Amino acid sequence: MNAPARPRLSQSGRPPVLTAEAMNERGETVVRGIATERPLTIYLDRREVVTLMTIGQYPEHLVLGYLRNQRLLESLEQVESVQVDWETGAAAVTTRQPAATEDERLSRRTVTSGCGQGTLFGNILEEVASTRLQPPRLRQSDIYRLLRSVARYNEIYRHAGAVHSCALCHGEEIIYSVEDVGRHNAVDTISGMMWMDGVEGADKLFYTTGRLTSEMVIKVVQMKVPVLLSRSGITHAGLEYARRCNVLTIARAKGRHFLVYHGAGNVVLDEPAGESGPD
Amino acid sequence: MNAPARPRLSQSGRPPVLTAEAMNERGETVVRGIATERPLTIYLDRREVVTLMTIGQYPEHLVLGYLRNQRLLESLEQVESVQVDWETGAAAVTTRQPAATEDERLSRRTVTSGCGQGTLFGNILEEVASTRLQPPRLRQSDIYRLLRSVARYNEIYRHAGAVHSCALCHGEEIIYSVEDVGRHNAVDTISGMMWMDGVEGADKLFYTTGRLTSEMVIKVVQMKVPVLLSRSGITHAGLEYARRCNVLTIARAKGRHFLVYHGAGNVVLDEPAGESGPD
Repeated sequence: MNAPARPRLSQSGRPPVLTAEAMNERGETVVRGIATERPLTIYLDRREVVTLMTIGQYPEHLVLGYLRNQRLLESLEQVESVQVDWETGAAAVTTRQPAATEDERLSRRTVTSGCGQGTLFGNILEEVASTRLQPPRLRQSDIYRLLRSVARYNEIYRHAGAVHSCALCHGEEIIYSVEDVGRHNAVDTISGMMWMDGVEGADKLFYTTGRLTSEMVIKVVQMKVPVLLSRSGITHAGLEYARRCNVLTIARAKGRHFLVYHGAGNVVLDEPAGESGPD
Repeated sequence: MNAPARPRLSQSGRPPVLTAEAMNERGETVVRGIATERPLTIYLDRREVVTLMTIGQYPEHLVLGYLRNQRLLESLEQVESVQVDWETGAAAVTTRQPAATEDERLSRRTVTSGCGQGTLFGNILEEVASTRLQPPRLRQSDIYRLLRSVARYNEIYRHAGAVHSCALCHGEEIIYSVEDVGRHNAVDTISGMMWMDGVEGADKLFYTTGRLTSEMVIKVVQMKVPVLLSRSGITHAGLEYARRCNVLTIARAKGRHFLVYHGAGNVVLDEPAGESGPD
């Protein structure tokens, strides 16, 4: 029996931080790291799909994850190769046999908006609305251990700011940690990595520094990850999706503070109450 | 002589904050404000343009500003009415005579990405690249006064978080202050307000809590505002647009700290040096 065919990926990751001079409030010239932001246009079998602005660290995985989360690709076996060329800002995705659904989905593009003004293809909302996840029990002490772990990542943020960080975690172990100028790009990149590595979402936890808007919750549901932890807040629509799909959803998680917005019954409080945070 | 015709706008603004219960780390049930996030689909003369996820506080101005910044509308006089109906999530924009360019521009949509995955229509990048603004001299004491002024706004952020705030300022006066779940929506809403009120950008300053990605700088350049001040950082592509279009660009502005990334020669340091911030 043959192993399933795996796509060939170029290795075109670029350094995520450049430097620039700035003048501070004392009149001193200082050199600061700033995040890169490169346009990358995805072509699926020569058809232009989208141009993403990305930090460009893991472009091939971003492209795979984007097409996976947009349901423009159904299986990894479909994909022959992903070739990223920064000279032209193009990511060429070649499939073994173009899916029949591809044309139809591309033509049914509806443009939605998260932080920027995003795009969802096809019937993703219907698919997500019928998904119901099974979150595990989660101990408060596990949450605190995980928050300490993720704080050790976020390299680009510390050097340059202007990025969001996402991580896929198993217990307190961080499997992937990705930063990007776009929150959605960071999620999509992790989705691409999971696909390439055959990693499932059902026993994992997703951490993000970014806000839990509806699009963020939808993407995590698509990846079947049943626990979502954010340093930031949640929107009302994000909470509606979390409830409908039964995602254990914790926002404002920082230091010892957190707020469980959905699934409080799954959280075991096993630590002495600390100082509460500001909200 | 007749006054120029002005569009009729519905008044469908909605409360930006709802409440939800959450469990905190002490096991207490607390009630917190959370920002709303509503889908709003724009129809320009019955053609679907885009679906934005917005807090919904000033939907008519958001729609006008979006269409203005996308160059899908060239003058306010073209617009007969903007009618927002939340039952259907639709914003119907009716023009007096559909512009000849409308079909062409809509068909040349390229989808780009800022924080989410955004959309720019037509030749906006070429237009912006040829714009060169004339920033005024700006005193450090003016910057500090302005930062104190904007801190008094940001109501939704204080109550619910998960939003970005933008403001159009003249000296230390805040003309408009808008918060939204999407940074771009807040900018577009201010652009719509400027249009309706006949306010020009050339002698103004634009403040945002959000990051200065390329799309953010592009939108401010489109509005001809020559000074851009952000509490957050800047990306490399954002800085390239700021340099090319000569926008006085100040990032990391918080308390007494700031970093001038472009246009340092226009900033007059007239305050004693304080404690420098962390970066």
